[in-house]
Amino acid sequence: MEIVTFTVADSNLDKVRQLIAALEKVPTKLYNDSFFITWRYPEEYIRAVLYAAEAMQRLNRAGKSLRVFDTGLGISIFRDKSTRTRYSFRSACNLLGLMTEELDESTSQIAHGETVRETASMISFLTEVIGIRDDMFIGQGHAYQEEVAASVEESYKDGILAQRPAVVNLQCDMDHPTQALADLRGMIDYFGGIENLRGKKIAMSWAYSPSYGKPLSVPQGIIGLMSRFGMNVSLAYPEGYDLLDEPVEAARKFAKESGGSFEIVHSMAESFKDADIVYPKSWAPLSVMKKRTELLRAGKNAELKELEQQCLANNAKYMDWECTEEMMKLTRDGKALYCHCLPADITDVSCKHGEVAASVFDRYRKELYLEAGNKPFVIAAMILLTRFPNPAATLRQLMERDLDRRLAQ
Amino acid sequence: MEIVTFTVADSNLDKVRQLIAALEKVPTKLYNDSFFITWRYPEEYIRAVLYAAEAMQRLNRAGKSLRVFDTGLGISIFRDKSTRTRYSFRSACNLLGLMTEELDESTSQIAHGETVRETASMISFLTEVIGIRDDMFIGQGHAYQEEVAASVEESYKDGILAQRPAVVNLQCDMDHPTQALADLRGMIDYFGGIENLRGKKIAMSWAYSPSYGKPLSVPQGIIGLMSRFGMNVSLAYPEGYDLLDEPVEAARKFAKESGGSFEIVHSMAESFKDADIVYPKSWAPLSVMKKRTELLRAGKNAELKELEQQCLANNAKYMDWECTEEMMKLTRDGKALYCHCLPADITDVSCKHGEVAASVFDRYRKELYLEAGNKPFVIAAMILLTRFPNPAATLRQLMERDLDRRLAQ
Amino acid sequence: MEIVTFTVADSNLDKVRQLIAALEKVPTKLYNDSFFITWRYPEEYIRAVLYAAEAMQRLNRAGKSLRVFDTGLGISIFRDKSTRTRYSFRSACNLLGLMTEELDESTSQIAHGETVRETASMISFLTEVIGIRDDMFIGQGHAYQEEVAASVEESYKDGILAQRPAVVNLQCDMDHPTQALADLRGMIDYFGGIENLRGKKIAMSWAYSPSYGKPLSVPQGIIGLMSRFGMNVSLAYPEGYDLLDEPVEAARKFAKESGGSFEIVHSMAESFKDADIVYPKSWAPLSVMKKRTELLRAGKNAELKELEQQCLANNAKYMDWECTEEMMKLTRDGKALYCHCLPADITDVSCKHGEVAASVFDRYRKELYLEAGNKPFVIAAMILLTRFPNPAATLRQLMERDLDRRLAQ
Repeated sequence: MEIVTFTVADSNLDKVRQLIAALEKVPTKLYNDSFFITWRYPEEYIRAVLYAAEAMQRLNRAGKSLRVFDTGLGISIFRDKSTRTRYSFRSACNLLGLMTEELDESTSQIAHGETVRETASMISFLTEVIGIRDDMFIGQGHAYQEEVAASVEESYKDGILAQRPAVVNLQCDMDHPTQALADLRGMIDYFGGIENLRGKKIAMSWAYSPSYGKPLSVPQGIIGLMSRFGMNVSLAYPEGYDLLDEPVEAARKFAKESGGSFEIVHSMAESFKDADIVYPKSWAPLSVMKKRTELLRAGKNAELKELEQQCLANNAKYMDWECTEEMMKLTRDGKALYCHCLPADITDVSCKHGEVAASVFDRYRKELYLEAGNKPFVIAAMILLTRFPNPAATLRQLMERDLDRRLAQ
Repeated sequence: MEIVTFTVADSNLDKVRQLIAALEKVPTKLYNDSFFITWRYPEEYIRAVLYAAEAMQRLNRAGKSLRVFDTGLGISIFRDKSTRTRYSFRSACNLLGLMTEELDESTSQIAHGETVRETASMISFLTEVIGIRDDMFIGQGHAYQEEVAASVEESYKDGILAQRPAVVNLQCDMDHPTQALADLRGMIDYFGGIENLRGKKIAMSWAYSPSYGKPLSVPQGIIGLMSRFGMNVSLAYPEGYDLLDEPVEAARKFAKESGGSFEIVHSMAESFKDADIVYPKSWAPLSVMKKRTELLRAGKNAELKELEQQCLANNAKYMDWECTEEMMKLTRDGKALYCHCLPADITDVSCKHGEVAASVFDRYRKELYLEAGNKPFVIAAMILLTRFPNPAATLRQLMERDLDRRLAQ
Repeated sequence: MEIVTFTVADSNLDKVRQLIAALEKVPTKLYNDSFFITWRYPEEYIRAVLYAAEAMQRLNRAGKSLRVFDTGLGISIFRDKSTRTRYSFRSACNLLGLMTEELDESTSQIAHGETVRETASMISFLTEVIGIRDDMFIGQGHAYQEEVAASVEESYKDGILAQRPAVVNLQCDMDHPTQALADLRGMIDYFGGIENLRGKKIAMSWAYSPSYGKPLSVPQGIIGLMSRFGMNVSLAYPEGYDLLDEPVEAARKFAKESGGSFEIVHSMAESFKDADIVYPKSWAPLSVMKKRTELLRAGKNAELKELEQQCLANNAKYMDWECTEEMMKLTRDGKALYCHCLPADITDVSCKHGEVAASVFDRYRKELYLEAGNKPFVIAAMILLTRFPNPAATLRQLMERDLDRRLAQ
């Protein structure tokens, strides 16, 4: 892949043709299925998302309509606050022609057991995709998404649903695939091609934040994905801030297979040393997240308060885990690409003491925002791959249709 | 009508042509009007909804676009919690090309007198349909819907509105027509045609629930509709749980006219005896609903609490009104079709003691969900009939246009 | 301009052609920009909005689709309650083919400094227009809208956004341009053309209301706009209820330039004397709004309560500032056009003692609602002018396309 030239009216449709041809060569079995966790899929699936996302982004830049649905619904379920993922999902749905609705669980009966199946079916009669964010409860977020998917699958097989809605993981307790893939798209653009990532060092490092209970899915998603392309992945965190085993084992295996490497260190500085990419980001210790899940389920508010205090006190021991200008000097030529899923805790801007110095953040703002801008297209690619039997052919049809997104002049 | 074959790609368009021909023969006066209460309409209106709904459902199964509006709004007003009716309405609007909005009365001035008229007009400049659920207050829900309809009618006649939005009753204190018609569509499919309902016995029975204040509109809607097709309608409830007079009188009249029968009994077992269809469902006593309406209007919270306690205590006397396996054995060959508007109170699943045994519910889950899946198309049919002067011609145009709902391959 | 004949199927497309020709002669520099405050724009901009709005309203009445976007988002941010402006914005977006979303700030991080820029960009990847209502805080509402516009402008120039979303002022602390322009469209229709407004007297008068803290933007918007067309503008309010200097100075200057006049008086009766148009409407004293802004920012609730009491007590001194039948008799032939942005505080209807007598309001209800019905088209015109480089050509294309908004028969 070459660098995407983000001119406003990029008419380089030859590049789109190449991407479609590449997509055709990596057939997936995602049709009539869902998109959950990147490291559980073969690498071809990842490439398919990358090709489809870039092709659609280029067609959009060229002013072409990507509408593939005349009518249909895209439903989102957010069990945590969100602005960018929420708007990315809505944008992706709108891009493809779906009307979005957000299921407000406070006014519905969706919960456990029987009713998940029932509600999942009841909202899906005209639904093509259900995007779910459920990242708060360790051991439960992915399970819930699987349950919704199994419910609509069964209703589809029973002939209750005329189509089988895809479940798209908008962040669970395990992975945050739309984020990690948007980040990967950004890195590919920045370094001029996926092959150029080979041999690059990426530091996925814990960073201090004055808040508590941030999910583990971003670091897990990053190590589970970036290890597949020959990169040297360095995961850094203070003792006790371990991640789940599954993504760590996946990263170790992928690194070996792809000719890269994987290490765990307990020093941000060591991780940043000669890094080409740094991703400093706070998360909660796994043990705290497990305890928290239990207490939340049991409604033990006093204990939750106490846990928060302990956790914040523990975090405070690692205030020097900050992506400062000094820390950045340790990276390759002092010029590593700084990444973050946003919003970052920026020292003296969004908080007194945070994950990153304001001057570092500001220097990379453009790259950060370009990266974020990939997300709607990554989600659109997942919808395309799960809802169309031959996505390359569908994209080719879009090109041939050559319909402008707005009334042309 | 034959049985709808719910295969995913039902291409039996001959059947659609027959439905359109049938629709053409039952002209209604619904154009530029609203859809309120089934028993106040001639039987032709009911048949028109059934034909249009089935035709659209078949076209959708065949992958055809049903988009009849290029732009326009469908607005919903929900004065009670809802998942399935809310999504059915949104799905129906989306299917026809309307963008949906939900009027949040907490941020608006819609209330009584002057302002109902004003707000109804202010939200309707580009609006084709207003769906309203207002089922909590006896004597007021239908009146409110009528008031909204009269307001937009007047504004249309004054040239203020460019089109006359239809009001669609998504449940009021009297009727729940989209539910009853979706149920009827399900029964027709199950028994293989509307003519096969003739002579069948349907038991619309009160059932115990641990909750309080459930609306009367479902049982009223069921007896007011099912009595029109030669069925033997048996309404069962404990002493004191009477329904409003109007639907009971309508059911009695329709039963006589259609060659069926209507009875009221005070025993679930008696009602279930030899029944072909059972519809066990809880509702509040009419006297309680009237008292509750008064207290709610007066904001008398202590009295409301007391009323709830009395009502729950009274319900508890009838815990044996449950649709158990034993009760089902009384029905014809022990195999009556079990119906419910969903969500049901299922014993040991959603509550300790409810309306239906889990094993009964599970056995009929597929039929229940298929029935629920009819609702978006029933609503779409009501919109078609109220917004198009010649709905049969419009459906014929849809067929001739032959546009796929998604980009074809 | 002639009177718009609001027949339901107005097929006078010659008039639309004339409007498009007129629009072509008043080129604006609004493309890829925002629409903020009328009095800061040359008169050509105002005429462009009027021409485009009327052309689109006529095309809509003729049943034509105005869809210029195949996909895309319109996002609204409401920092104050709203029904009619909210629905007008949604209707305008839908009319043009945009899906609307409302940014709920309680679940997002949009606030000050860094994060306004970030959130504005994050919601804008597929966004064509952002409508903002922020009218509560003197000195801050317009500044916030400018900040959002500057943020998306920068992201567009950086290649982060594929298109530059317009910010449309849905009411700020300075102006309420969509309201004032909808009112102006109404006056033009009522008096049979913009030239017929020349020499007419308009009384923009304070009126008593039992509520407190109503924004100043409506009277400011009215005097800043109506003074441009040769009208005699009379602004009336009790001592102490002054408006901001900028719109008052603008009105004075425009009145002189256009051959009209501008006066400030402290008597409703004096203002109403021989008026052709009256606009009686409550607002808060500027000093109170400034104090209130401070207290709200500081979270001083006790002081806020006290301020409210003082303000209500002060208002109560001017209860005779009501648009009664007696007051109306003072106007030209007792028949001035009564205007209001709605909802009005109507005596004995929405409150015991309000801005207007019920009989006066009722007599002008049709004109008030017709006026309100102009707002979606005024907003649509602003979107067209900011998002299309040659709006006259785009409207001409719409006419030539000749697509019906609903499936024709």
